[in-house]
Order: sequence, then C-alpha cells, then structure tokens
Amino acid sequence: MTAALLDRPALVERLRAELGKDAVLTDADVTASYARDMMPLAPAGTPLAVALPSNTAQVQAVVRACAAARVPVVPRGAGSGLSGAANALDGCVMLVLTRMNEIVDVDPDNRLAVVQPGVVNLDFRGAVEKHGLFYPPDPSSYDWCTIGGNLATNAGGLCCVKYGVTTDSVLGLEVVLADGEVLRTGRRTVKGVAGYDLAKLFIGSEGTLGVITEATVALRPLPQAPGTLVAGFSDTEAAGEAVAKVVREGIVPSLMEIMDATSIKAAEAYLKTELGAGSDCRALLLCQSDSGGEVAQRELTAIEQVCQDAGADMTFVTDDIAEGNMLLQARRVVLTALELYGVWLTDDVCVPRTRIAELIHECERISAEVGLRIAVVGHAGDGNMHPTIVYDGSSAEEFARAQRAFDDILDAGMRLGGTITGEHGVGKIKREWLAKEIGPIGLRVHQQIKAALDPDNLFNPGSMFS
Amino acid sequence: MTAALLDRPALVERLRAELGKDAVLTDADVTASYARDMMPLAPAGTPLAVALPSNTAQVQAVVRACAAARVPVVPRGAGSGLSGAANALDGCVMLVLTRMNEIVDVDPDNRLAVVQPGVVNLDFRGAVEKHGLFYPPDPSSYDWCTIGGNLATNAGGLCCVKYGVTTDSVLGLEVVLADGEVLRTGRRTVKGVAGYDLAKLFIGSEGTLGVITEATVALRPLPQAPGTLVAGFSDTEAAGEAVAKVVREGIVPSLMEIMDATSIKAAEAYLKTELGAGSDCRALLLCQSDSGGEVAQRELTAIEQVCQDAGADMTFVTDDIAEGNMLLQARRVVLTALELYGVWLTDDVCVPRTRIAELIHECERISAEVGLRIAVVGHAGDGNMHPTIVYDGSSAEEFARAQRAFDDILDAGMRLGGTITGEHGVGKIKREWLAKEIGPIGLRVHQQIKAALDPDNLFNPGSMFS
Repeated sequence: MTAALLDRPALVERLRAELGKDAVLTDADVTASYARDMMPLAPAGTPLAVALPSNTAQVQAVVRACAAARVPVVPRGAGSGLSGAANALDGCVMLVLTRMNEIVDVDPDNRLAVVQPGVVNLDFRGAVEKHGLFYPPDPSSYDWCTIGGNLATNAGGLCCVKYGVTTDSVLGLEVVLADGEVLRTGRRTVKGVAGYDLAKLFIGSEGTLGVITEATVALRPLPQAPGTLVAGFSDTEAAGEAVAKVVREGIVPSLMEIMDATSIKAAEAYLKTELGAGSDCRALLLCQSDSGGEVAQRELTAIEQVCQDAGADMTFVTDDIAEGNMLLQARRVVLTALELYGVWLTDDVCVPRTRIAELIHECERISAEVGLRIAVVGHAGDGNMHPTIVYDGSSAEEFARAQRAFDDILDAGMRLGGTITGEHGVGKIKREWLAKEIGPIGLRVHQQIKAALDPDNLFNPGSMFS
Repeated sequence: MTAALLDRPALVERLRAELGKDAVLTDADVTASYARDMMPLAPAGTPLAVALPSNTAQVQAVVRACAAARVPVVPRGAGSGLSGAANALDGCVMLVLTRMNEIVDVDPDNRLAVVQPGVVNLDFRGAVEKHGLFYPPDPSSYDWCTIGGNLATNAGGLCCVKYGVTTDSVLGLEVVLADGEVLRTGRRTVKGVAGYDLAKLFIGSEGTLGVITEATVALRPLPQAPGTLVAGFSDTEAAGEAVAKVVREGIVPSLMEIMDATSIKAAEAYLKTELGAGSDCRALLLCQSDSGGEVAQRELTAIEQVCQDAGADMTFVTDDIAEGNMLLQARRVVLTALELYGVWLTDDVCVPRTRIAELIHECERISAEVGLRIAVVGHAGDGNMHPTIVYDGSSAEEFARAQRAFDDILDAGMRLGGTITGEHGVGKIKREWLAKEIGPIGLRVHQQIKAALDPDNLFNPGSMFS
C-alpha cells in the first residue's frame, strides 16, 4: 500500500462526512457504553469512535475509511453477547448496526423474510407471527438482542432441540467485506448448491470476516400452543437417564430444560414460592411439546412415563398456557435469582446428551473446590449446559476463584466429549480453549481463511483466535 | 519449492508402494470406467491412475504424492453425480473412496453415527434403521451413491421438503487437506459454535478444497409409515397454486413431487398403466405425510382440500403402504421411462415455490423452440425442478439443441428468481453459470478461499470455478 495512512482525527472527520454528525460518537462517556457486552471476564478497550450507519452504503464507507486508517473495526449489535466478541479494542471503531433495523420483506407464500441486522429478535418474531409464521432461534436475551448479533454468533436458544440454531434458518446474506465490497451470497430458494456455502461460513464468525448487513431467512409454520411437563428428581443421575431415554425413544420435545438443586433453590427464593419439587429435589426437568392436540398429549405422556421409569419423585403435565408459562418462569428467572447471592458468570458447554448428569456432578465438585455457589441450568435436550458461578463482585479474590471455576468447567466439558461453547461463542474469553479444542491444524485453517478474506486483520482482530 | 518434481512413473510407483498394487489401477480400459459420472454434457479427461485407498493414512499418502508430482487429484465416490464434478482431468489421479466403506459407530443414545465416505447411502440408511433411526438425505440414486459424494455435493432428495439437505445432518468431518494434513472439524454434540463452521464449508465444495474421509452425522427418530396423496390437474397453474397454498397454510408434507404432462405420459407408457389422471391431465402432484395416524390423515386431508380448491380434477388418498409405493413409482420411473424416446439430459434449477408453474411453461416454450421433448419432474415442495431433455444420442445436431435447451432452462430459472442448481452441483458443466449467479465479488471470495486452502490448485482444478 502506497497511499498515506489516514490519521485518527482525519478518520473521525471522514466518518462524520459520510454518516452525518449524529451517527459518529466520540464522547468518552458515551463510547464507553458501547465498549463491552455482558461477559464480565472479557477485556474491553477504549474505542476511538462509535459509528452508527443507517444503510449498507454507510457500512461500506466506515469499512473503507477504517481500512485506509488501519484502524480495527468491531461490529456490534445490542451488546447482549456473553463472550466479549463485541468488546472494544483500544482505538477501534465500534460499528454498531442497531440503526439498520428494517424488516425488508415478509413473503408468506415462500415462507421467508429479509431482515436487517439491527432488528430485535422479539420484534422480528412478532412481525412474522402476524403472517402465521415462526422464526425459531430464541436466545434467552431475545427481547433485546438483535438478529445481526444472532447471526454473528450463530445463536441458539430454548427451541433448538426441535428447530435447530440460527444457521439452520438462513438462506442468504449480504456482507460487507474488508475492502468495502458487498458480497451477496446464498439465495431466496429453499435449496441451492451454487458454489461454497459462504453464508454458513460468515454465520458464527463473530465479526472477524465481514459485516452482515442483511439476511434472508426461512420461516416455519407457527407451531401450536405448547403443553408443558415438569418432573422432579431426588437423584441427578435419574434426571440424566430420563433425558437420554427421551432421545433414545425418538421423542422430540420443543423444549427440554434442566435445573439443578442450586438453580431450583435460587428460583424458589426469588419467586417466593415452592416449585413443588420437595426439599430433597436435586434436578428438575421442564419439557414442552408444541405438536398440538392429541400428539402433544401423547408426547408429554410418553416423556412423563420415561421420567417415572427413571425414578422421578414428582411429575406434572398441563396444557394450560398460563400454567405452562408460570412453570417455565422458574427456568427463566434463574440468572436474575442468583443475583440474590452475588454477581454471576455464566459458562456454556455442550456435552453429549448421555453425559449431562456427569457434568452436573463435575460442577458440584468444582463448586466445593473453589468454595463458590455454581448453579447449573441448561438445554438438556441438546446437552448445552450453562453452569453459572456466583461470586462477590467486590472481591478480586473471589473473582479469581470464579475464573478458575469457569476454566475447570470447560475442562470438564471437554473431558466428557463436549465442546467449549454450545452457543455463546469464543470471543475474547475462550481463545486458548478454542485452540485446544480445534488443534493446530484447525487453527491453521482458521488463520488461512481469515487471512484470505481479511488480509489486513481489520475486523475484530485477536478475537476468537489470533 | 526446491525439491525436484516427482515424474509420472515415479508417482505411480510411489502410490503402489503406499497403497499396494491392487489399489492403484493404470490399465486404460479400467481407468476409463472411473473417468466420468452420469452427466453426458461434461467433458472427461484420461486419468494417469486410479487410487483406491482403504484408510485415511492412505488418502494422505496419495495427496502428498500427487502434491509432490504436481498431479491433480479428483476425489470420487460411486460416480452417480450429474455435474461432471467427479470427472477425470487429463493426467490426474482419481481418488476413489469406495473402499473406505465402514460404518464406524452408531450411537442411538445420542442419536448420531460416524461413517466413512464409501458407504452407500441405502446401506447406511438400513444400518441406522435397525436402531430405530433415520438418516434423511435421499438423493434419487440412493441405492448406489455414496455418503462421500452426498457430502461433497450437499445432496438433497425427496424428503428435503421436511428434513433438509445433507449439510443439515452433519455435525463434524474429517478432511485430508492439500498438504496431506488431517483436519478434524465439528463435534459429536448437537450444538457447538467453537470457531468457524468449517464442516459446512467443505460440504458441497465438490472435491475442490479437501478429501472428506469421515463424517459424524445427526440422526432423527424413524418416522411413521407414510400416507400418500395424488392429485391430477388439467391446468398447470392450478397445480402451482396448490403447491403455494400448501406452503402458505403451513402444511409440511414429508414429500411433495410434481410431474408435468410429458412425464406422466412417459411413466404411463413405461408402466403400461393409466395413472388415473385422465387424458387432459397437465400436472400430477404426489404428496406424503409421515407424521403418523390421525396427524398424517389430517395433513393429507388438508392438502387434498387445497388441491380441490385449486381446481384438481382428481384426488386420491391412501394410507396403504404398498399402494403409496406404487403411486410413487410413477415418479421414480420417469427418467428410465424417457429412455423409450431417446437419451436424456437432466437439468436442476430451484425456483421460489410460487413460480413452479411459470417454470413448467418456460420449459414448454423451450421444448417447442428447440423441437425436443422436455419432461419436467421435481421436488415441488422445495421448488427444485428437474426439467429433462430427451434427444437422439446418435445425432450431434440434436445434442447441440439439447445443450441449448439446457442453458435456456437455467436462464429461465434465474429470471424467475431461482438458482442454477438446487442439488446436483456446478461441476464441469455450470462454471459460467455459477459466475453469473454469484457475480464477480462472489467469485473472488471463492477464489480467495480456494487459494487459501489449496494454494497449488491440487484438488479438482477448474471444476466449479476457475
């Protein structure tokens, strides 16, 4: 490159000229609020500026200006992430996509939609629901996370057990590349094999390969209102055996969550109610079926039988929606409930579905070793578990122990044949773990692809791997 | 590179030393039988040798030896492909994976299996069925095509409408890279976002990025025996409207095929029976539901109603398996039946599901223009259509007209918002069309990824794109 580098003030000036003054923020107090996501373990630097483009052309302008200045670009949505992937690097430009929040098209006859990255997941779900359609991915933060972040992290959620994760819903993408060119990849048809599946390469790449500016997604028919089952176990193995047996018997619930004893106690304390599981309850399974009518009934009855055979002390089935929501609330409040005891740090491992009980026991062992409360909740139907460590936020010493527990849990997950991240991503907290999981050849291929698509390491450098 | 190039005889000698004499074939008559797949349009060269490795280490040895000799490697399975992707290049080594035909593991408790590339699709389906499990991808050649070829082309089939294509079933891959190193990517867990989704990049890459030597795939519970519906229409638009309405009403059949008038007549002539559609029948829809019992009944009744509302002249529903198979046979025999009239050339376009009738009309127009019979069959539920051109194999002039029709159909598919290949791939026949569909930026990204992973252009050079 022979052109002189753009210096920092000139970069900000150019961004303002391209995007307008109100779309480029540099006040330190303001930019700080865009500098980190929800993961306390991840480092966060101080951005040079926050850019809020309103369209693809403005994203191209930001990318080209930053490339000319050799200033890193960190793409970001709402900031609900749990890996630090969207955290600032010192002197970077935060490329915030929340103003690109248009639902471009909903096509019920072809059961698809076209959506911009800044649309909030829940808003998108609501918009397609009006057409009798269903966008499955439902990460826990679905009421405030954005589709762009969901795409960048290949987000999951509660309904993955039946409907898959984000990548399973995507037909095509528009992506701004490192030189500012726009790639349109994929299609509007259900099937298509014209060339490499580039869309699925960008999905889950955590802002390291390009900036996703539009997605074409496949929608499903809106499922029936779900029936709900809850089962309590005084023995964790018995709950684990019930999960494995549901899988083995070929039952596919639309939701299958597990809570361990610590989670149950926290939820009960927070909700000021008994979950009916009894004081010696070690694990609670929550299942739903959205198959409708007699099929849902049959599925839940079959799961109830499996739970009873496995040794459940209590089972309860309802097709009342309000009652089902109330039961599910116990699962949804766990993280908030844990704040009764301190601040929390949630982990994310996915193990084979036969090994969930072992993972819970490993977490009990680690909890005893580090002397901190660890609550295990998770998507049992997928084996995707979120052990959550509670510590005193004002104590550096407790924080250090929490970090140790966080790593020990990843180690346990890997030893059980699992992965170091089921749905939250690698970001800035699991780089070493990624290298361990994928090995030197896997890492090399990552580096080769990154170098091919982003030779100057413009996008989110050092995140995920380096 | 400073090492001297291995010359051709030395390469063959080295391959024999590594794989054993019976695993390296050079007799021209024998190697010719490995030189092309089922697509008559595609060029095929004369291979230097055919290598039949029995394990991953031998694949590595072949790749390293060919790299040292700068001799191209063309990976190949059974040769059932329809794009020439597995066709020989002059002087290449055909890397035939059929001897790696072990089903390594079936794990019913985690609903997954590990399989080598040389296993025939039907054999694999049968093996997992013994465990009450289901491997969905079912390309028409499923009784002889191999899993490796299915992975390399991201194969589809009849059941995609409900269960997706090959990539949707894959959890992890083992791949031999261009320098002979082994990449293990993906996982054995249901979910996982540790790093880029490299497995989905290799799937559908048509042997241009690496050699797939093992796959870990997710299985589904075995579905119920299907009920079957057939509907006849004297008006193609009415059949197209019925398809769109099934989609719009949120019904998801496990199979939804369409046959046009030419296909119906060919099948009737071949089977020496009337399909009951009447002489003025222009389109036949065949649907199945594998949801079981009253749900299947309800789904088929709903589809029947949609067909009648759209103007079907005849509908017939059965839950008798033998009767259902007989009806489906009409669809399955179409290509064979067309051989009554000449040799055939099958195309593969995927259009939005609302535009199927338009595509059929375009094919009628093209048929009249080129003066050749064109039969349209297709996976209506996906919009993935296979217009099949019949010509006199001994006439170069008719072949030229068939080629023109083939291209005109691709052009029509693109104009209708579709893709140039729904499931057969690009291979050696649609390179120019791929470039047209993905545009210069898409092509550049393909070239960048190819150069990053296969810098010496060892694997299947010039196939798919160049």
